[in-house]
Parts: sequence; structure tokens; C-alpha cells
Amino acid sequence: MKQKIKLLLTIVCAHTLLFSGSLNAKEPEKTLRDDGELFKVAIAGFTFVNFNLDETLKMMQEVDVHYLCIKDFHLPLNSNDEQIAAFHAKLAAHDVTGYAVGPIYMKTKEEVDRAFDYAKRVGVKLIVGVPNHDMLPYVDQKVKEYDFKYAIHLHGPDIELYPNAKDIYEHVKDLDPRIGMCLDIGHDARDGQDPIADLKKYKDRVFDIHMKNTTAATKAGKTGEIGRGIIDIPKFVKMLRQVKYSGACSLEYERNMKAPLAGIAESIGYFRGVIDATK
Amino acid sequence: MKQKIKLLLTIVCAHTLLFSGSLNAKEPEKTLRDDGELFKVAIAGFTFVNFNLDETLKMMQEVDVHYLCIKDFHLPLNSNDEQIAAFHAKLAAHDVTGYAVGPIYMKTKEEVDRAFDYAKRVGVKLIVGVPNHDMLPYVDQKVKEYDFKYAIHLHGPDIELYPNAKDIYEHVKDLDPRIGMCLDIGHDARDGQDPIADLKKYKDRVFDIHMKNTTAATKAGKTGEIGRGIIDIPKFVKMLRQVKYSGACSLEYERNMKAPLAGIAESIGYFRGVIDATK
Repeated sequence: MKQKIKLLLTIVCAHTLLFSGSLNAKEPEKTLRDDGELFKVAIAGFTFVNFNLDETLKMMQEVDVHYLCIKDFHLPLNSNDEQIAAFHAKLAAHDVTGYAVGPIYMKTKEEVDRAFDYAKRVGVKLIVGVPNHDMLPYVDQKVKEYDFKYAIHLHGPDIELYPNAKDIYEHVKDLDPRIGMCLDIGHDARDGQDPIADLKKYKDRVFDIHMKNTTAATKAGKTGEIGRGIIDIPKFVKMLRQVKYSGACSLEYERNMKAPLAGIAESIGYFRGVIDATK
Repeated sequence: MKQKIKLLLTIVCAHTLLFSGSLNAKEPEKTLRDDGELFKVAIAGFTFVNFNLDETLKMMQEVDVHYLCIKDFHLPLNSNDEQIAAFHAKLAAHDVTGYAVGPIYMKTKEEVDRAFDYAKRVGVKLIVGVPNHDMLPYVDQKVKEYDFKYAIHLHGPDIELYPNAKDIYEHVKDLDPRIGMCLDIGHDARDGQDPIADLKKYKDRVFDIHMKNTTAATKAGKTGEIGRGIIDIPKFVKMLRQVKYSGACSLEYERNMKAPLAGIAESIGYFRGVIDATK
């Protein structure tokens, strides 16, 4: 109980600091950017697979991004409440909020249970997951029990499980409306789909978005910086507004992952340039 | 004579490589970006004051920028033809063209002479300079003799010499039309001016532009990333097109100069996001 109160206080503290901006007293010339949109500019934790949490948060600060999808290599699934509280406190000290967890692969009921329990203890209400098809009825049961949203991650032509938005929709359309997708626009395009049309079509089932771009609308397409590729980002941003998308748009940067800062910065800059220019 | 032919051949070679893109054979997935504008996305050499030429070109490659304003710390004013040829060859190997030289301060006739001779040997037809007021009649004579353009750099409220665009215009309006300005939009704004209105007003005298932004329209304003500040960059880009500006828009990044890559990448990304979104 004491642990839980401590955790709660840490989270409250973190949020107070984040939204009051009082941490910025140290750097008076820097203010937290307000993108002025329903959606949030964020980064997917996988972007930082080669970096520890301190390095990750330093990079996020550098590019003025304040929402992170939490990956298990930064906060293991078996973390206890104290470790979770320390994690949130560290994020808050860098003006960052962990808005969801995942992607988490789930092949068994035990793995589904573990993921939901983890998300609850972390204090988020959105899981990005990759459930085996036969786990979907159980996921359906769990979202009702927890009142969480569950975003299935699509991965293009590389993996048979959930190659594109349509495939996910076909699997979830008869399930609880809290089960939907994390629309990875690069991988959707690499599977020959139109991510802008898909956002419009499946808007009620899109709970998270992975931002990137791809050099071609085929499996051979390489994903990379948001501004380098065939996806029309200005058109996508306009569609985000048209469908009133209010979730996160998380950069998942998968090129040059050993030295990603330049690609991250360019991507975030490009995204914000498009946002500002299309207001 | 032999030296001059060698220099010429090197330059021709460099340009052939640059525009044929044959260097990219090494990196098949990377193509040179075409921003599709009359103006060019470029970087001002001063951005790299703490880096040698190799480090500079590596950063330029990383952000896919292909035009550099040459600073004397990368190519000294007393370079001989062989050194200049080697410099151009190195730029070409990184798909970069040096489009101008400067800023160069000029307090005496000898310094003006030296700068024009240097630019001629470097093979550019644009000098970014800061001439003392009493040197202007001599600069006027030199631009006629060399048929060069001469862009006077403005530096906001920090330096008495040429604080803003209007000040430069007042000094050059009765001189040869090849004498004009390098419109530093950050410093012009820091001097309380409107750089977008100034671009429109002085378009026939704007030969180079320094891109940046500023946190305030006062001397206390800090310059930094193109997307962070009070200057409306989408509006500025639209004005670039409206006045048919065909010179370089050179990022001059002056924050975090010891580790500038993230700020450079974010700035170039933002600029290109705005360009793409306002086409």
C-alpha cells in the first residue's frame, strides 16, 4: 500500500512538473513546445533499442519531444512498483511522459496476462501488442476487464502476422471497439497499402501511429526519416486533423540505429515543419 | 596555366559527378534530394566553426544538403590553386558545391582586393562581406570590374555595422545593383525588423540568406533551430517563391555549436517540411 501511494505521488509529481514547466527554470530560454494539435508528437521506444534510458531521455530533450511509448528494454515487464516509480520520476525530470507500453508480442494467455498487469502497474491505459490470432478472444475479454485500449502493431510484408491495416481491421472488426491498431505508416505502405486512406477508413480503430517514411511501396522499400520517402506527409497530417485523431504520432526510426540522433532530429523537424505549415 | 587547367578540370569533374549522381553508386538507396525550388537549401560555413572540412562534409551528407558557403577556416584566403582544387574535389566527393565565400570582413582596400582575388580563384561569383562604410565606393568599383555579386551581411543589434536589412539598403541603394545583402532573418528580427517584409521590399538586393530563428524580436532573443522561434517560416518560404528568390537559403546554426548535428538536422528537416507542405 505504501509503495502504491509512493508510486501515485511520483506520477502526480511528474505530471505537475511536466505541465507547470517548472523544471525549465534551469534553462530559461527553453520552453516546452506546444504543437497545438489534438494528436501528440511522440517517439516509439524501439527507436532507442541501442541506448539506455538516460541516453534516450537526453536525445528526447534535445529534440523537444515529450511523449514516449515505453519498451521493455527500458522498463522490464517484471519491474516492481519501486522501479516503475523511479522510471516515471526519471522521465518527469526530462519533461517526458510514458503514454503507452509496447510493442509486446503475446503468444500465450500468460503473456497476455503479464502485459495487462504490467500496463496497469505502469499506469497507462494503452498497450501496443502483437497477439497471435488465437489470443484475440482472450485479449477481447481483457480489454473489457481492464478498460484498456489495445493497438495491434502491423509490420508490413516482413512478418506474416498483421502485414497491414486492413488485415488488422478484418481480425478486430467484430471484437470490442477498444481493440484496434498501431498504424505503422511505413510498413503499411511497404505492403502496398495507402496509409492515408487507411487512417480515414479505420479511424475508429487507430489508437497509436508509428511515423516514418519508406523509399518504395514494396517490400524492398527502406524505412527512414519522416521527410524522405514516398508517403505524402503533409497529406497525412491533414488527414490526422480531418479524422480528429487524438492519440500519439510516434516516430519509430529504424535507419542508422547506432547513431540515430540526426535522423530523429531531422524527422521531428520535418514533422513539425509540416504541422506548422498546414495549420 | 597548367595549374589553372587542372583547377578547371577538377571543378568540371566535381560538377559532373554532382549532377550525374554517379557517386551514389556506393549507396544505392540514397539519392540526392531535389527540393524543386528556385532557391537552394544550403548551409553557411560558420555553422561548422568547430569542425574541420571532413567532419563538416560528413554532417552535410548526413542531412542531404549540397550547397555550402565557404568560410576561410575551411579554405584560407591565401590558398593556392592546388589547395583550392583539392578543396573542390573533396566537396564533390561528398556531393557538395561551394556556392559563395564569406562572410569576410573588409576594413581596407587591401582586404577588399584580397577577397575578390580569393573569390575569383575559388571560382565563385558571390562574396558575402562586411565592408567598412568607407570601403563601399571601392567595393562598387570592384563588382563592376569582376562582375561579382556582393552580399553585405547584417548582424542585428550586436554590431553597429549593418544591424538590419534597411540599413544595408540605405547604404547600397545608389551603388551598383550587384551590391546587396545577405539577409540574416534571425538577426534582422532581433533588431526589431520583419524579415519577411524586408525580403519583399529589398528582393532585388537580396543575394544570400541566413536561415535560423530567434526566441524574441529583441537583442535578448537567442537564435537557434529554424523551427523554434517567432519568425513564421511557412510565411517566409511563401515569400521566397513570391519574389522568385533564386539564391541560397543557408542555415547558419549558432546554438550548441560544439555538437551541432542534431540542431542542423532538425533545422533542415523543419525547413524541408515547410517547403513540401506549402508547395
